[in-house]
Amino acid sequence: MVAAPRFSGVLAPAITPFEADLSVSRARFVRHCRWLLDHGCSGLAVFGTNSEANLLTVEERMSLLEALVEGGVSSAVLMPGTGCCSLMDSVRLTAHAVRLGCGGVLMLPPFYYKGVSVEGLYRNFSEIIERVADSRLRLYLYHIPPVAQVPIPLELIERLLHRYPGTVAGVKDSSGDWNNTKAMLDRFATSGFEVFAGSEVFLLANMRHGGVGCISATANVNPARIRCLFDNWRDDKADAVQEELSATRAVVQKHPMIAALKAIVSHYSGDAQWAAVRPPLVELSAEDRRTLAQSLNARGFTMSGLGRG
Amino acid sequence: MVAAPRFSGVLAPAITPFEADLSVSRARFVRHCRWLLDHGCSGLAVFGTNSEANLLTVEERMSLLEALVEGGVSSAVLMPGTGCCSLMDSVRLTAHAVRLGCGGVLMLPPFYYKGVSVEGLYRNFSEIIERVADSRLRLYLYHIPPVAQVPIPLELIERLLHRYPGTVAGVKDSSGDWNNTKAMLDRFATSGFEVFAGSEVFLLANMRHGGVGCISATANVNPARIRCLFDNWRDDKADAVQEELSATRAVVQKHPMIAALKAIVSHYSGDAQWAAVRPPLVELSAEDRRTLAQSLNARGFTMSGLGRG
Repeated sequence: MVAAPRFSGVLAPAITPFEADLSVSRARFVRHCRWLLDHGCSGLAVFGTNSEANLLTVEERMSLLEALVEGGVSSAVLMPGTGCCSLMDSVRLTAHAVRLGCGGVLMLPPFYYKGVSVEGLYRNFSEIIERVADSRLRLYLYHIPPVAQVPIPLELIERLLHRYPGTVAGVKDSSGDWNNTKAMLDRFATSGFEVFAGSEVFLLANMRHGGVGCISATANVNPARIRCLFDNWRDDKADAVQEELSATRAVVQKHPMIAALKAIVSHYSGDAQWAAVRPPLVELSAEDRRTLAQSLNARGFTMSGLGRG
Repeated sequence: MVAAPRFSGVLAPAITPFEADLSVSRARFVRHCRWLLDHGCSGLAVFGTNSEANLLTVEERMSLLEALVEGGVSSAVLMPGTGCCSLMDSVRLTAHAVRLGCGGVLMLPPFYYKGVSVEGLYRNFSEIIERVADSRLRLYLYHIPPVAQVPIPLELIERLLHRYPGTVAGVKDSSGDWNNTKAMLDRFATSGFEVFAGSEVFLLANMRHGGVGCISATANVNPARIRCLFDNWRDDKADAVQEELSATRAVVQKHPMIAALKAIVSHYSGDAQWAAVRPPLVELSAEDRRTLAQSLNARGFTMSGLGRG
């Protein structure tokens, strides 16, 4: 089996821009993704929760992924979200991503039916791996119980790692519960399983316990400074940098995350269309946009080189 | 505007059969749906929660709906589920159902993102109605907070009814909370808004307070007796019939509902393939299947005329 590129560092779940008619804006998407890679991101977890991926169709995701590759982004740094409610959609997206050469995929559990068993979840992931049937596949599990409401239990990881050791490559833990991240690290990290914190708030702790980085919403707007902590986490000043990063995130998180990220990009690029979100999400009010920009400006926040349009 | 057929009585969220390779079994599906209509169902809420609809692709749903119409089922009695995470998928499925002449559609809210606002939900349904742009559309809202985790609040119904009075036709309340069903009835039923209980357990109460029937999982296996209560709800013995129906449902509900319904159809048809479910669901164990069949047999339960294969 050929060793595929693995991930580490800071990955952004790249936000997805829309046109006025709510269709996806391919040009803005490619431009934003390239900016992220030029400003600290080591990879892109496109089609994550904060990408509004679960408001996109299967066809839109495939088209956007192709746009990135055609736009000159190396597929090796891409970890698209490919986990859908339907096993068949997950297979289709995953096979497509592997064909394009993506370094990995980040997979939600099927999230409509609640209270499902570990056996049922195991069958879902197992069926996907068997049907994609491609040794290049590197699968990262996406644990985000506050949103998906269906978790990735430790027992599931253990079973999948045992059966598919070369394929099941890591996890993004967006539980917001450090004890859970630590349990994942303690049980699986020494064997090469890559644990990403789901927020930069836990980046330093994750690195100190054997993790490989973070996949964080706010990497969409603050990638360089988050990367700085990743590069220097053994430094004396790391705790102070972590504190600073967490404080910036707290400013953003006073608002609904996706609308806030888009408001920030819209503000610093001067491109009003960037603020658009798909229903059932709602863009920030004018007042909230002002408050957010003022709070960020007060912290000396900038987004250099962000092109317009 | 042409008055479209409206719904009342007992509707089944028809269960969806699979082949051994987990592809949909069109022939079994059409046969089951015809059996339901011949044995008491006044309509079919195909592609509901208990249809494993959220484990099907958009294309599979459209193909199965076409199979029903081609198989001789009148589209006027069909109320397919068309609410997806993505607005664009919901529009596509809804437009397809209206084009086929379906009497209505039953629409989940977009269910991935949690804690969304009434404004955001309003925009989702409003965008769908505006984009489908067909006066034949009759939209039934699907309130099932225990599974979707995203509710249909009363305030949302009020706003939608105010803006789209000819289009927003009713609701299925699967909250399991009679107080909520009663609040919907009290606020909206007198103006013709059709309230369906999400389970036959609330059928009698719903009829007594101005509702129009029920859309219930167990109508897949017990349609004739549920219909009997609907037809005779003003009868002296209605309370006793309700008690009997609820007791039968309780027997089924000791097990995971979808797997149990499929086990029952499999048992009474002698068609083992009917028991198959898609991951992350799991079929009943052999022991659970035996227990369930014994409990139903002890109650004199039968499914007459259920064909094999």
